[in-house]
Amino acid sequence: MTTFTNSRIVRIEWGDCDPVGIIFYPRYFEIFDASTSALFERALGLKKIELLKIFDFTGFPLARTRARFLKPTRFGDDVTVDTAVTFGRSSFAVEHRLSLKGELCVEGSETRVWTVRDPATGDIKSHPIPEAVLEKFGA
Amino acid sequence: MTTFTNSRIVRIEWGDCDPVGIIFYPRYFEIFDASTSALFERALGLKKIELLKIFDFTGFPLARTRARFLKPTRFGDDVTVDTAVTFGRSSFAVEHRLSLKGELCVEGSETRVWTVRDPATGDIKSHPIPEAVLEKFGA
Amino acid sequence: MTTFTNSRIVRIEWGDCDPVGIIFYPRYFEIFDASTSALFERALGLKKIELLKIFDFTGFPLARTRARFLKPTRFGDDVTVDTAVTFGRSSFAVEHRLSLKGELCVEGSETRVWTVRDPATGDIKSHPIPEAVLEKFGA
Amino acid sequence: MTTFTNSRIVRIEWGDCDPVGIIFYPRYFEIFDASTSALFERALGLKKIELLKIFDFTGFPLARTRARFLKPTRFGDDVTVDTAVTFGRSSFAVEHRLSLKGELCVEGSETRVWTVRDPATGDIKSHPIPEAVLEKFGA
Repeated sequence: MTTFTNSRIVRIEWGDCDPVGIIFYPRYFEIFDASTSALFERALGLKKIELLKIFDFTGFPLARTRARFLKPTRFGDDVTVDTAVTFGRSSFAVEHRLSLKGELCVEGSETRVWTVRDPATGDIKSHPIPEAVLEKFGA
Repeated sequence: MTTFTNSRIVRIEWGDCDPVGIIFYPRYFEIFDASTSALFERALGLKKIELLKIFDFTGFPLARTRARFLKPTRFGDDVTVDTAVTFGRSSFAVEHRLSLKGELCVEGSETRVWTVRDPATGDIKSHPIPEAVLEKFGA
Repeated sequence: MTTFTNSRIVRIEWGDCDPVGIIFYPRYFEIFDASTSALFERALGLKKIELLKIFDFTGFPLARTRARFLKPTRFGDDVTVDTAVTFGRSSFAVEHRLSLKGELCVEGSETRVWTVRDPATGDIKSHPIPEAVLEKFGA
Repeated sequence: MTTFTNSRIVRIEWGDCDPVGIIFYPRYFEIFDASTSALFERALGLKKIELLKIFDFTGFPLARTRARFLKPTRFGDDVTVDTAVTFGRSSFAVEHRLSLKGELCVEGSETRVWTVRDPATGDIKSHPIPEAVLEKFGA
């Protein structure tokens, strides 16, 4: 089982923060979602918008997520998000570690499902992750 | 020229507010967008999701907006949003007045365009507002 | 150990939804956060803004959260959020069940910490939940 | 009257986009707000969080804003935001031009007010912009 990783820097903005002056925690999930997209973009050399066209799928919605909040972050903080993905057959696990100046602030994990639109019903359903995708990740 | 109006109460939430404890102003535009949808739902007796299916259009994106911020609002405030719409041929004007305990806090106005997907190019383009829609508004 | 519950209806809005037309999952955490505030407001008869003034605390940030996403929701859906809280000494557990027409769509759980500002350092630190709060919850 | 400018690149994310696949317009105001902060940070060499501590003020809330939406943007777009500020006595005007591949997509303008907390009442009120700030902008 191979793991593919990516790292990015994200600025915590004024509008991300609450009346106590710390980040409003749903913003972390926005950051994690963009970090998962960034990892795919780096591995595949394709933006998510191109990915959707080429692979005729409907994204990778979450089945489950967990997060632990260890230290708050504040507007003006430039945090590092290290993201790692591990693939199953039609789902994959993502781990995010968000840190500030080397100190871990938030740990998040996601289980996401590769989905396509059922041509018969129009509903979204899970589907095996294409080989062409897995190859790019070296999985 | 007829004007159709709607009124709704919206709670300003903790997560809508910034480190000074007042609402982060982009949240007002989220409130206004939902208020425009609510007005259409009330006039047509259809939710926006049903509206899109029946009229085969792609929403009513903004062409222009303006807002004046007179008094700040805070988490826990239950504000009143009074919304009025006036129709043109393929666009319409919306006015929002957001008030707290009878005092005007924000005034916003929007020009929105009725759009459909061009079957040839797939692009979104403006289109005359259907008569069936205008009739429901008494316009 | 007593559990206190609250229920509320939330409209999923157009702006909460992603290009696939389903809710963007960080919006669920915004809904959950407001649901926790609503539960406290109902139990204490105080809005969060009043609560912060009276009890001289700095909110109840999350230590951990988990969520399972069973069925997607869409703009126009009026979902029900049932929230239950169980108290510890300086932390409390919150369970949210978000359902549509009686079908469970999302399950979320939170561990939150009662915090005050340390007068010496200005930092935020955990603190036992005041008796006056616990009494109102019948805990 | 001098004008100070700044430019930044912003990625439009999946979660910024609506069911039609284009950006949900309140997100533009989040981008503009962060762009105004970025311009101040560049001019003053201080993050907004440091600025608030040093100048003992309460931010620069909006009095008015206007925007024109010329072309939609989509997730995966890396847009350029060019921001310019012009100072008055206790207020300042900000112009944002958001473009994609050299084509103007959105034009936004803001009037913001320099505010401090009134020590007597605790209310937020306008205040002349400090000379030390104006000097850094060459104004």
